Amino acid sequence: MAYDLTVLGKKAEAASYQLAQLETKKKNTVLLAMAKGLRDRTAEIIAENKLDLKKAAGLTQAFVDRLTLDEARVEQMAEGLEKVAQLPDPLGDLVGGWVNEAGLQIAQQRVPLGVIGIIYEARPNVTVDAAALCFKSGNAVILRGGKEALHTNLKLVSILQNALRNTGVTPAALQIVEDTSHEVANQLMQLTEYLDVLIPRGSARLIQAVVRNAKVPVIETGAGNCHLYVDNAADLEMAKQIIINAKCQRPSVCNAAEKLLIHKDVAASYLPQIAQALWDHHVELRGDKQTQKILGSRIKLATEQDWYQEYNDYILAIKVVSSLEEAIAHVNKYGTKHSEAIITNDYKKSQRFLAQVDAAAVYVNASTRFTDGFEFGFGAEIGISTQKLHARGPMGLLALTTTKYLIRGNGQIRK
Amino acid sequence: MAYDLTVLGKKAEAASYQLAQLETKKKNTVLLAMAKGLRDRTAEIIAENKLDLKKAAGLTQAFVDRLTLDEARVEQMAEGLEKVAQLPDPLGDLVGGWVNEAGLQIAQQRVPLGVIGIIYEARPNVTVDAAALCFKSGNAVILRGGKEALHTNLKLVSILQNALRNTGVTPAALQIVEDTSHEVANQLMQLTEYLDVLIPRGSARLIQAVVRNAKVPVIETGAGNCHLYVDNAADLEMAKQIIINAKCQRPSVCNAAEKLLIHKDVAASYLPQIAQALWDHHVELRGDKQTQKILGSRIKLATEQDWYQEYNDYILAIKVVSSLEEAIAHVNKYGTKHSEAIITNDYKKSQRFLAQVDAAAVYVNASTRFTDGFEFGFGAEIGISTQKLHARGPMGLLALTTTKYLIRGNGQIRK
Repeated sequence: MAYDLTVLGKKAEAASYQLAQLETKKKNTVLLAMAKGLRDRTAEIIAENKLDLKKAAGLTQAFVDRLTLDEARVEQMAEGLEKVAQLPDPLGDLVGGWVNEAGLQIAQQRVPLGVIGIIYEARPNVTVDAAALCFKSGNAVILRGGKEALHTNLKLVSILQNALRNTGVTPAALQIVEDTSHEVANQLMQLTEYLDVLIPRGSARLIQAVVRNAKVPVIETGAGNCHLYVDNAADLEMAKQIIINAKCQRPSVCNAAEKLLIHKDVAASYLPQIAQALWDHHVELRGDKQTQKILGSRIKLATEQDWYQEYNDYILAIKVVSSLEEAIAHVNKYGTKHSEAIITNDYKKSQRFLAQVDAAAVYVNASTRFTDGFEFGFGAEIGISTQKLHARGPMGLLALTTTKYLIRGNGQIRK
Repeated sequence: MAYDLTVLGKKAEAASYQLAQLETKKKNTVLLAMAKGLRDRTAEIIAENKLDLKKAAGLTQAFVDRLTLDEARVEQMAEGLEKVAQLPDPLGDLVGGWVNEAGLQIAQQRVPLGVIGIIYEARPNVTVDAAALCFKSGNAVILRGGKEALHTNLKLVSILQNALRNTGVTPAALQIVEDTSHEVANQLMQLTEYLDVLIPRGSARLIQAVVRNAKVPVIETGAGNCHLYVDNAADLEMAKQIIINAKCQRPSVCNAAEKLLIHKDVAASYLPQIAQALWDHHVELRGDKQTQKILGSRIKLATEQDWYQEYNDYILAIKVVSSLEEAIAHVNKYGTKHSEAIITNDYKKSQRFLAQVDAAAVYVNASTRFTDGFEFGFGAEIGISTQKLHARGPMGLLALTTTKYLIRGNGQIRK
């Protein structure tokens, strides 16, 4: 018989009403019980993970690494749950409130979204992380992880559900889709009757597939073709530190720099030393004709495609620009509206860059690598939104909430 | 040659950068020039409207009424523009701000969404209204109105664009899709490269078609299967006023009541007088078996379908419930999460209804008819969101904005 997601949907919806009413203290008790459950049953988790790993023999080293759990990683998961327990509960806050002309007391209160779907790949830590954040924010969650991690995920979910059950909370707060076929994933993307939002976490390919196919509202996360613009009024030593950090500290992530724009007045003298520093860090450089002229044949000519591309790798494309305006226009044309930075000591230019660049996070004199829920101080991160609706930039627990209006009257009717 | 929306998209995107930087005073000058333009050219507008009306001969009276413009209605449009000019500008406000552990000054600033698409039917006032609200909130807009209003809409847009041009603002701030075929409407729904959001305004059918077909993020507006629950601890005279107001004041709108739930302890004595009052207002009543038993054969038995239906008409379905819990469960099952009200003087029950009902607006002792941008005091309304992402409930100018993070550093790099 076909796998029926509406069964999960119904259970999740029913659970969401219980979760919305749970007191913070109770939720934290559950999260700590979940952490204890993972620690107590580490051996079982690792045993199930080995079954997944056995099947993953043919896959890339990076893939296998993300899939692999050992004692230290299970301990990290447990600590993650404990950290979420320590975060402030976002629910119940009044976002605003006023009395309208008719005398109604209108209060806008923060409430859970309801039921959240998470589609991700083969990183078992996402299972625990997403479960914790959705639970703390009062939402029921339906997880759909990659098929390669199914044994591990089923074990993790069963341990977390046990903790729910043992603390008197419905285990339907957290469910996992056991059929990992594409058909069922597509069914999940259409489950508008039960899902309030769908959040894809993982590769650009996964995210685009979800954006393309989903009828459920999606929060798009991830793609980051981030630029650094080094102005002619920059502190060039500072710029160098920022370039190396933004490109090399962790090139695989979305807030790493992919492009360097440099003002023509400083390009000739500055690019050779920057290039050397980047080469020392094993970064492949590409560039426009001007850059090539300055740096020579070791630089591959960047194509139009390069300017759009997020490398997620030790590659940086460099372009010489003749003005701040050209830099801003380039960023707004080719960027993914994620994180963009200017390095300058010119006040007016800093103000113009901040105002005119259209991105979730716009920096002056800092590395783009700070666009991150933890670095922002949210204590958690469910992803980095690159869309403009609902949430933009790093998303913590608040992004998993909505509001409702509570309206108290004494018989008001509309004239 | 096929109509190419990417041309409009590119122009709108370019315009959006200019609009985001316009000063409030300038925007208000433009809005007043638009109002003057409409007044000065009222005769031309009415002449074009007559061309549309000539073709609309076969359509319903209600449709023709919505399409028809006269001097008074053009004057209303002009006044609408002047009112939007008086509204506070939502842009630039800092929604939050802090210094993170690395010493970065992080400020979250309200900015425009960018490019907004509006799909609507044959109400020419939406053309002016949507143009005004999108412009005031710093967004470029692409309008796609119903084909029956095309002559009128083209004239209105040309007048508004003239006002833009004459005040030195790009007319691409406001564009209209001239090809009103379904194919081009579908193309608009897929225009993810240029549109930041799509807002359908009109019938449930239109809205559902957009939700189903759009790849662009949609703000779903409209459907309202609103309930009134009369508790056994209600002030029954107050309840009567509210029932009559919520059902009869304007039955065609989404915040009108469609269902009455009544506690069994008061049903037998109270329903007959309520029924009589509703019949006096020409309301057709349907009901569950209990209601039928009390009110007799004049009451049609409500079907399962009735409980889900938004009548938008002089029809009300009544159900006798045995507890607050049953009322809440019914509302959460059959409601559209729009506006729900309890009439009670029991404090605990009021608190439980407010907490447990999942809807954009939850009322105690007031008519659901207040769920409205103007009644809420927003001074404008682009629609009433029944989804949970981004905006929930009445949407004013704020709903047409997003935020970006402005981050000022002094050389910070990530450790």
